Amino acid sequence: MTTPTEFQFTDYQPYDFANRRHIGPSPAEMTDMLKVIGYNSLDGLIDATLPPSIRQKEPLVWGAPMTEREALDKLRETANKNKVLVSLIGQGYYGTITPPVIQRNILENPAWYTAYTPYQPEISQGRLEALLNYQTMVCDLTGLDVANASLLDEATAAAEGMAIAERVAKSKAKAFFVDADCHPQTIALIRTRAEPLGWSVIVGNPFTDLDPVDVFGAIFQYPGTHGHVHDFTGLISRLHQTGAIAIVAADILALTLLKSPGEMGADIAVGSSQRFGVPVGYGGPHAAYMSVKDAIKRSMPGRLVGVSVDARGNRAYRLSLQTREQHIRREKATSNICTAQVLLAVMASMYAVFHGPKGIKAIAQQVHQKAVLMAKGLEKLGYKVEPDTFFDTITVDVGHMQGLILRAAVAEGVNLRKVGETKIGMSLDERTRPATLEAVWRAFGGIFTIADFEPSYRLPKGLLRTSDYFTHPIFHMNRAESEMTRYIRRLSDRDLALDRSMIPLGSCTMKLNATAEMLPITWPEFSDIHPFVPADQALGYREMIDDLIEKLCAVTGYDAFSMQPNSGAQGEYAGLLTIRNYHIANGDGHRDVCLIPTSAHGTNPASAQMVGMKVVVVKVRENGDIDLDDFRAKAEEHAANLSCCMITYPSTHGVFEETVKEICDLVHDHGGQVYLDGANMNAMVGLSRPGDIGSDVSHLNLHKTFCIPHGGGGPGMGPIGVKAHLAPYLPGHPETDGRSGAVSAAAFGSASILPISWSYCLMMGGEGLTQATKVAILNANYIATRLKGAYDVLYKSAAGRVAHECIIDTRPLVDSSGVTVDDVAKRLIDCGFHAPTMSWPVAGTLMIEPTESETKAELDRFCEAMLAIREEARAIEDGRMDKVNNPLKNAPHTVEDLVGEWDRPYSREQACFPPGAFRVDKYWSPVNRVDNVYGDRNLICTCPPVESYAEAAE
Amino acid sequence: MTTPTEFQFTDYQPYDFANRRHIGPSPAEMTDMLKVIGYNSLDGLIDATLPPSIRQKEPLVWGAPMTEREALDKLRETANKNKVLVSLIGQGYYGTITPPVIQRNILENPAWYTAYTPYQPEISQGRLEALLNYQTMVCDLTGLDVANASLLDEATAAAEGMAIAERVAKSKAKAFFVDADCHPQTIALIRTRAEPLGWSVIVGNPFTDLDPVDVFGAIFQYPGTHGHVHDFTGLISRLHQTGAIAIVAADILALTLLKSPGEMGADIAVGSSQRFGVPVGYGGPHAAYMSVKDAIKRSMPGRLVGVSVDARGNRAYRLSLQTREQHIRREKATSNICTAQVLLAVMASMYAVFHGPKGIKAIAQQVHQKAVLMAKGLEKLGYKVEPDTFFDTITVDVGHMQGLILRAAVAEGVNLRKVGETKIGMSLDERTRPATLEAVWRAFGGIFTIADFEPSYRLPKGLLRTSDYFTHPIFHMNRAESEMTRYIRRLSDRDLALDRSMIPLGSCTMKLNATAEMLPITWPEFSDIHPFVPADQALGYREMIDDLIEKLCAVTGYDAFSMQPNSGAQGEYAGLLTIRNYHIANGDGHRDVCLIPTSAHGTNPASAQMVGMKVVVVKVRENGDIDLDDFRAKAEEHAANLSCCMITYPSTHGVFEETVKEICDLVHDHGGQVYLDGANMNAMVGLSRPGDIGSDVSHLNLHKTFCIPHGGGGPGMGPIGVKAHLAPYLPGHPETDGRSGAVSAAAFGSASILPISWSYCLMMGGEGLTQATKVAILNANYIATRLKGAYDVLYKSAAGRVAHECIIDTRPLVDSSGVTVDDVAKRLIDCGFHAPTMSWPVAGTLMIEPTESETKAELDRFCEAMLAIREEARAIEDGRMDKVNNPLKNAPHTVEDLVGEWDRPYSREQACFPPGAFRVDKYWSPVNRVDNVYGDRNLICTCPPVESYAEAAE
Repeated sequence: MTTPTEFQFTDYQPYDFANRRHIGPSPAEMTDMLKVIGYNSLDGLIDATLPPSIRQKEPLVWGAPMTEREALDKLRETANKNKVLVSLIGQGYYGTITPPVIQRNILENPAWYTAYTPYQPEISQGRLEALLNYQTMVCDLTGLDVANASLLDEATAAAEGMAIAERVAKSKAKAFFVDADCHPQTIALIRTRAEPLGWSVIVGNPFTDLDPVDVFGAIFQYPGTHGHVHDFTGLISRLHQTGAIAIVAADILALTLLKSPGEMGADIAVGSSQRFGVPVGYGGPHAAYMSVKDAIKRSMPGRLVGVSVDARGNRAYRLSLQTREQHIRREKATSNICTAQVLLAVMASMYAVFHGPKGIKAIAQQVHQKAVLMAKGLEKLGYKVEPDTFFDTITVDVGHMQGLILRAAVAEGVNLRKVGETKIGMSLDERTRPATLEAVWRAFGGIFTIADFEPSYRLPKGLLRTSDYFTHPIFHMNRAESEMTRYIRRLSDRDLALDRSMIPLGSCTMKLNATAEMLPITWPEFSDIHPFVPADQALGYREMIDDLIEKLCAVTGYDAFSMQPNSGAQGEYAGLLTIRNYHIANGDGHRDVCLIPTSAHGTNPASAQMVGMKVVVVKVRENGDIDLDDFRAKAEEHAANLSCCMITYPSTHGVFEETVKEICDLVHDHGGQVYLDGANMNAMVGLSRPGDIGSDVSHLNLHKTFCIPHGGGGPGMGPIGVKAHLAPYLPGHPETDGRSGAVSAAAFGSASILPISWSYCLMMGGEGLTQATKVAILNANYIATRLKGAYDVLYKSAAGRVAHECIIDTRPLVDSSGVTVDDVAKRLIDCGFHAPTMSWPVAGTLMIEPTESETKAELDRFCEAMLAIREEARAIEDGRMDKVNNPLKNAPHTVEDLVGEWDRPYSREQACFPPGAFRVDKYWSPVNRVDNVYGDRNLICTCPPVESYAEAAE
Repeated sequence: MTTPTEFQFTDYQPYDFANRRHIGPSPAEMTDMLKVIGYNSLDGLIDATLPPSIRQKEPLVWGAPMTEREALDKLRETANKNKVLVSLIGQGYYGTITPPVIQRNILENPAWYTAYTPYQPEISQGRLEALLNYQTMVCDLTGLDVANASLLDEATAAAEGMAIAERVAKSKAKAFFVDADCHPQTIALIRTRAEPLGWSVIVGNPFTDLDPVDVFGAIFQYPGTHGHVHDFTGLISRLHQTGAIAIVAADILALTLLKSPGEMGADIAVGSSQRFGVPVGYGGPHAAYMSVKDAIKRSMPGRLVGVSVDARGNRAYRLSLQTREQHIRREKATSNICTAQVLLAVMASMYAVFHGPKGIKAIAQQVHQKAVLMAKGLEKLGYKVEPDTFFDTITVDVGHMQGLILRAAVAEGVNLRKVGETKIGMSLDERTRPATLEAVWRAFGGIFTIADFEPSYRLPKGLLRTSDYFTHPIFHMNRAESEMTRYIRRLSDRDLALDRSMIPLGSCTMKLNATAEMLPITWPEFSDIHPFVPADQALGYREMIDDLIEKLCAVTGYDAFSMQPNSGAQGEYAGLLTIRNYHIANGDGHRDVCLIPTSAHGTNPASAQMVGMKVVVVKVRENGDIDLDDFRAKAEEHAANLSCCMITYPSTHGVFEETVKEICDLVHDHGGQVYLDGANMNAMVGLSRPGDIGSDVSHLNLHKTFCIPHGGGGPGMGPIGVKAHLAPYLPGHPETDGRSGAVSAAAFGSASILPISWSYCLMMGGEGLTQATKVAILNANYIATRLKGAYDVLYKSAAGRVAHECIIDTRPLVDSSGVTVDDVAKRLIDCGFHAPTMSWPVAGTLMIEPTESETKAELDRFCEAMLAIREEARAIEDGRMDKVNNPLKNAPHTVEDLVGEWDRPYSREQACFPPGAFRVDKYWSPVNRVDNVYGDRNLICTCPPVESYAEAAE
């Protein structure tokens, strides 16, 4: 008999994380809620909600759930299996110092990390300002006109750049040129992306191998992955002559000293902002940047923050050009990107604010001088150092000594980069210390001290930067920690995140991000591991990843997982690629039809397009279910070329469809594969498994179902699970197995946030996860029931039940009272709530997903707010309230409204304290309703020159 | 030549913590500020401010200042020298699990830890509510009527209990009885405290050695330090018959299962609330509790939170009976306590909310059953376990095997308690795991598993608790983490702390508490060390403490330090005790006169009283300086019995007095010692040393000058420095040197917050500390200059300069406009500021201390607010504004004001947005002005039964 980890003497378990901390309603509350819905037991409700045919046979179990303390101990033990060495590997990932004030007040602060994507701009002004700073920073450094609010990683950004180039280039060529000096993972991703679209990729030396006539675009790395710094001005000019597009992948820190891509004429710049204060974290998450010339800004994927005005004419930020790409274009989109890395972009922008132009430049100069010093030492030992001029990266040919020196360096505590079979590369960074140089010299056989050499400069003389950057006052504010702390707090106070209120966003599963899950991610043993370290230095990571995969397999019924995709959309893309490669391997390369119901999320057709599939749209019935007849007809019609179908389960209408198994069988019968979108997995865990239903592949949104916080709009993780027959076709990676098909820059995507999902699984146990699913369904049905009479719930199962979310119809209000779904959403702000998902999947509706983490009290507060809003609309219907000048149209109400003249036909009290709003602790929207049209007509996407900024201290 | 830790190639130092992060004004700002004051250089200003005679000769240097990263590396290296074993030592310190949601959102959250003492109740409602929860928790568990908001530690609380007993007892006896079963440190502190007051202490078995007639009071430990649980009901009744007071020192967790002290008839209960979620931290900080019968509540020291109403009649919390003890009674006070351990009390109260009565009881039951299991194993090995019934602590007689077993246990990773020469004690706790029991059994020679024994109960049957506790709804709220997080955030949002605004509190030095300084304190290597571990397990602590002492000696010119006092007042007390013991050792035991100027802080005479000194008050001149003639006269008059003087430097009037050296010489000439209060050390560091001026002993407020945050009203640290001749008389401690004179329960006071002060010293370097002092003086003089014309600065040096703070006179406003200093303070809330120190040292004035950490922009914002307030008063003077209904009298303005009817002769705009107030980011006071009189007349000091609490979830 083995000794248990903890004692459990008492019936009452004070450390029961699942039922006492994660799951919101208490047992007493659940009983009350079930009574309202009309069930005697939770299991009764669940049995009525999920069709018996899809229920999983065996309960989900994997040993006893851990307490928070046990999980933290387990994470600590696992973390200790990672070895933290100094990394000089470079290759897109560099040592950086996260300022403590940023670490604690942003990365470790729930006010920042639990926020949602800023789709509701009024309650997102804080992070929108931080992102505008980010865009300004990127535009300044790259010398280009418009930057977006970040992309997933540098390699993805490069591939996105290629896709833009193909769309906007005047050249009709179908090849893309890639500088052989690009990072290997960038080249790999470009290959992955180009292949299904039929674009050929030419990798070579741009100065000898590039004929602009052949290509629609080209990408150059600046500085190159091995350190070379070239002037691409001439090449770019020649590309432009043939109508091709020039992309420069540039190191953001190098740009403080070197001529910018914009000044070379580049159309697009991409890169990583990781080294601006974001830990390497075994590969991510980090924010990649993209900036473009003004002319092509409307082709740029991702999110773009812009400046607009609110209803009072005061400045207000918002997402500009918001509804485009996959939402509108669907299968004609060039990109499926619908996210950013907001939390990391915010950190990088704050790093720039924290250091200012002088500080960042000094850091860059120091990094360069360290590299020069390193080179001098190696030269003294007789090595030839390449290149002659460089920024931070040098390469040395060591012949047959390569292995010996690399091992000696590891013994000295330093990882160097293996380059080919005879060379060693190294990139110096902000963290590199004198002792590290001396250690490397020793590994090369030299006993020097840094005092033996004079620091100097070896930057390319013709490429020195002469233009200004960071001229906006925000980069010149007084950077005392007192000011920084208050600036960060002021911004976060403007935003409404999970730490103040529920965020009932349908399809986004804004559940609890427990503190115990978050604590480990800033431990150095997780955050300071370079993604390309030797495998024996990341044993903790591998153990965690392997165990998490095992648990995800148990949850989904799949046989294998890839942790590479670092967003849900990347997961879809990777999953479809897997299907495609499976067909090709089976000699079925012609199979390229993808059946997608009209109700699908826009990313589905966009992803299908990206892998070269032809999207065939399948109808949806009035009740939201897939039209089985139409599905059958389309499957038969395209049987010969059927690649797959993409379905979402439970459906995007929030219902468990009875016919899902039939659909899977149909597709299989016609030689296709089933992609089941895992976005709604929070309604299935422990109750039903995609792999059992008949699906072959799914992505999971770990940032939904498995508790990774949304970070204000990123990071995320979208690993894909597959049945055994697809496992050989999962994405490869140049730095692990060397196979093709990489979809992320790092082999395990944003690995450093996986401790969150893992500890969630450990603390919940299989039973806890199952109970969470049941309560998520309970909470949604409770809301649907409580709102009955006031709003119609659009889609229900035959038994009248919804799954984990419900769509309520606000369209009748438009006719009866002129109240739009927008008015309802903004009025909810007055009540202290973030609006549910608006107008998706059906325009004019609200999709509400409470998740299991919300208590009955919070659900009731929300329902009372919604019911009161309905009554306000009724007052308009009844003529008791003006159609234009009413609390709904004027929402959200601000302090400015209260302070000014009050000429409204309702009271201040009614305006500001509708049901739901806290009295003493009311959340005040910092702006009135934001004018979207104005913002798009007057597109400003960098910090405006304004008086309201604190006076510059320098 | 040694290798430097970091490169420093560039002139611009991005990592210069002192000048770029800690010190607020940038160089450009300083130039502007000096121009306003009328100096060309900072050194010019300093030379004009500090008399040459007191300037230190040599600059303060101790090697290069560290960057934040270097300091964190150094702290990590030091932390790793502490060994984290499992502790079963007990003796007042127990393993506990800090809920992560509390750790991150309170202990690691600047909104909580940078707050000040809640003297301004309107902007302190959040922590006042948490403290009221604390008081309710203590009253419930102890069964007594009134609890205060916490004391420094259990031993101090016990000594305070004795002092109350002596004051309120009807018995005229002069002895105090102490249960020999009290913790050794408690006995030591009681002895220390009793001796100078002439009270004899009888230590013995209360059931055999106590004759109530002999004593004014008695204290019993419950359960006893070795585990015995006795019913003191009969003894207490006998004490009451003779008019003596009964104190029970009770374990707060045991009280959930055992009859409460109140039910036994105790008058006073004391104890530690450490084991409610506060890490042991090598001895502190923790919150000790004290509760008393209603009849003696007005004799209770420390702070007491009460319920009152605001100007609108809404409920509002405040400190009750605020101005008493040392403030009023001065040399007649029984206690010098003027602080609490707010941050730790808040944590303990949140732990109770987090677990609720069922959870806490389950934890207590589990702890008990672990102890029973442990006993059974030891009994099976043939050991006799004492006592027969117990809660968590057992003792075993092991004869000559003691050393062997203790060492074997350490080898197994467990610390047990050495009891006498033949016994071993152990206290089981919340953290104890099955593996620990098995390890202990192995150390005793038994190879058992926990499955070999059945858990059961051995609680004393006659002492089982039957009464309820935690009946208030707050302890029954839904405890899902989503709710806990939001409750914690709502409370913190009500309070105005340093993370939102400067807090210009004169004499309190509310400077930056840098994140880098705060990060290490929650590392387990600092937080999880029991105070009484073998010395070789705390080498990191010792190294840090030794180095910090060395630096503090360099700063002060003293030769030795004691780190024991855990508050400034404790420091004064310890310093005076040291002087007293020095005189006694020299045969000058009759020397008992202490000269104290009238301007001294109230703690000075109170402390002198506590060590049995006679306070002789010295006059202060009109300009705030000590009246030298009076001083000389008093010194001469009392020459034969002169023990010491207590002076503050620079003076409590914020001026560097020219005569300080003369005063020191005078005292020495008459055989006395000089105690220089270090409260204003922030004006001296690097410029002037008490030890050079002629002082013999000082306490330093590490929570002022050395960056320990105020925590909303505690913790603090008040170590004392002495010249060499006094070093032998510094406090001893039973667990270190075994000498008498302990003043704190732990040998190094609140050791776990020392990393803050140490890293501050490391990152500033001597030069940075000196510059900080200069800028503190600059900032104060800048404010004094900017406010000229509007307000008179009361005290200045001959050169017209103030030191690091300035006192401005608002008394003229009372006559001219009826505006009181209170009105000004409350109006500052509307401007987004915490008021300066009010009416101290002079009634009707404001003492402003900006500290060096505030930027020019923040100082200007403050000055503009103060100038606008003056103009508002002028409007009243001029008759342009009503004398009663005006923005000053109605301040602070709340949202309630805005929402309701507006019948005021000024605009809402003027009310809410006076100069200084942020527009978008305005801080709103959660309540209108709090009614102090109502609160004291209707004293309610536990949670009121109210509807506004969230509905109980259980």
